[in-house]
Amino acid sequence: MEQSASTKKIIIDTDPGIDDAMAILMAFHSPEVDVIGLTTIYGNVPTSLATHNALYLLEVIGREDVPVAHGSAMSLKNVPKLRIADFVHGKDGLGNISFPPPKNKAVDLCAKEFLVKMANMFPGEITVVALGPLTNIALAIEADPMFVKNIKQIVILGGAFFVNGNVNPAAEANILGDPEAADIVFTSGADILVIGINITHQVVLTDKQLMQLEESESAFAKFVCKIAPFYFTYHHEAYDIKGVYLHDPTALAAALDASLFTFASGVVRVQLEGISRGMTIFNNTGKRWGEVSAWCNNPAVKVAVTVDAHRINSMLMERLLKM
Amino acid sequence: MEQSASTKKIIIDTDPGIDDAMAILMAFHSPEVDVIGLTTIYGNVPTSLATHNALYLLEVIGREDVPVAHGSAMSLKNVPKLRIADFVHGKDGLGNISFPPPKNKAVDLCAKEFLVKMANMFPGEITVVALGPLTNIALAIEADPMFVKNIKQIVILGGAFFVNGNVNPAAEANILGDPEAADIVFTSGADILVIGINITHQVVLTDKQLMQLEESESAFAKFVCKIAPFYFTYHHEAYDIKGVYLHDPTALAAALDASLFTFASGVVRVQLEGISRGMTIFNNTGKRWGEVSAWCNNPAVKVAVTVDAHRINSMLMERLLKM
Repeated sequence: MEQSASTKKIIIDTDPGIDDAMAILMAFHSPEVDVIGLTTIYGNVPTSLATHNALYLLEVIGREDVPVAHGSAMSLKNVPKLRIADFVHGKDGLGNISFPPPKNKAVDLCAKEFLVKMANMFPGEITVVALGPLTNIALAIEADPMFVKNIKQIVILGGAFFVNGNVNPAAEANILGDPEAADIVFTSGADILVIGINITHQVVLTDKQLMQLEESESAFAKFVCKIAPFYFTYHHEAYDIKGVYLHDPTALAAALDASLFTFASGVVRVQLEGISRGMTIFNNTGKRWGEVSAWCNNPAVKVAVTVDAHRINSMLMERLLKM
Repeated sequence: MEQSASTKKIIIDTDPGIDDAMAILMAFHSPEVDVIGLTTIYGNVPTSLATHNALYLLEVIGREDVPVAHGSAMSLKNVPKLRIADFVHGKDGLGNISFPPPKNKAVDLCAKEFLVKMANMFPGEITVVALGPLTNIALAIEADPMFVKNIKQIVILGGAFFVNGNVNPAAEANILGDPEAADIVFTSGADILVIGINITHQVVLTDKQLMQLEESESAFAKFVCKIAPFYFTYHHEAYDIKGVYLHDPTALAAALDASLFTFASGVVRVQLEGISRGMTIFNNTGKRWGEVSAWCNNPAVKVAVTVDAHRINSMLMERLLKM
């Protein structure tokens, strides 16, 4: 794909993951962005498998030239057992299809190093689209004080704002994956867009649309139809909906065109302890607080509050169907 | 006031408090209920002052026959310094008016004992309207295993459901006053209605309505006009609204007529630790959770989700203006 000078450089931090795969496919058919790398993280799969899957997806796409940087295998607060959502995405993260090992390998730099290097190389130009737990991004922030200035924007898929979580009533999966990292990122001062499940639960790919993809000869549509059934079955059972939530493609859409959303600006903090560990709490009132709290004197982020779900759904379909 | 056989017996657990005073005045002009006692608690004022004010309010109302039971002076987890909202209600809790000491005294039973005794005396008949931190109610639940069965209903003014708190972005004042007690009450299995600030911030007494009360010769209206200015000034400054939130009268209205609200049923837990201590988290999804959490295997409560704010406002005005 030809890249114009105005094309936005993005790095996708990802734990593929069926909806991650959809977002990555969508990105490579999006003229608005140039994917300059993938960094990997645990979440839907362990990090080693995320790297494996990222490399394989680039083969499917025919873009083995794009570097993959292997990310952290554990959260900042090294917990004994990471929560891996294999019941949503399959044991292999891609719907339990049998796919060959990737031919390529990850680059020598780890995800943190790759993020810092790219941000330094292209200051003010790179948007990170973070589709999993925020460990790699937090490590990059801690490694280089200039990272938050050098990076153009971080789009975060994570959190549940004024709605229940999806792991439990308090917490959303990506933030619960590494609450300490998320709190570092939210309060880092970087330019941040946050797309929570209050938004992504409005953007659904329907069972009917999957049938439409099945009728297509497009390579991307064919691949999605191979990996998607496991993800659809999970949604049918857990949510009783005739479709799937488009979490990751919706976050990617925010990097493509932020005007598909409206945002409210305010401080987000992450609860680190107790029954609501991983909960994102957004100060979204005009109240003049009388007391000092964890929200005071912290930089604001932009939290998505409305979304043009229909347009994002159309964009995804269009870009998957593109031959 | 004549009480018919169908009149509902209520005990108001209260920390008066300007809006507590409004709710108490309203209750004594409400034919739907018979106030069989007031129990006192810290919150807007320390408990000793709450008892003092409750006794004084009954004098103003001319109902010194109604017993006042002195409640707990501290939260379950005895914290070094209770949070007292004197900046909302004035140092004396009633808008810094100079009023004489009450002539009457509290009964010999403490609030917990009074609650347990009354619930035993009138099983299935008493509704507790809890307008402050839930310490007394939790103590009654712990003191008598039959209390939750004997009590007809507990109406709780507290919590912030899918909105920010009012002490900080996470916590509402009454629940933060004693989070441990609130969690005991919410999970007790009693029949519980919860009126959070998501509801009470919709029910406003306007500056104009205060002027209307000022023109009245009604004793209740006159008294409200004496105590209200401090509460109005706080709201003007903290919230930039031309009126005040009717927290306590709205909770009382739920005891008068629950059909003024709609409710959603689900488990509420209280966060006890960290930055969001005191936050109420309500499981309000149809999701089939894959993981065990603090919300599993606990009894549901009814959380108010909509309110007929106009009708409650009219009821309050009508009952304050009644000669």
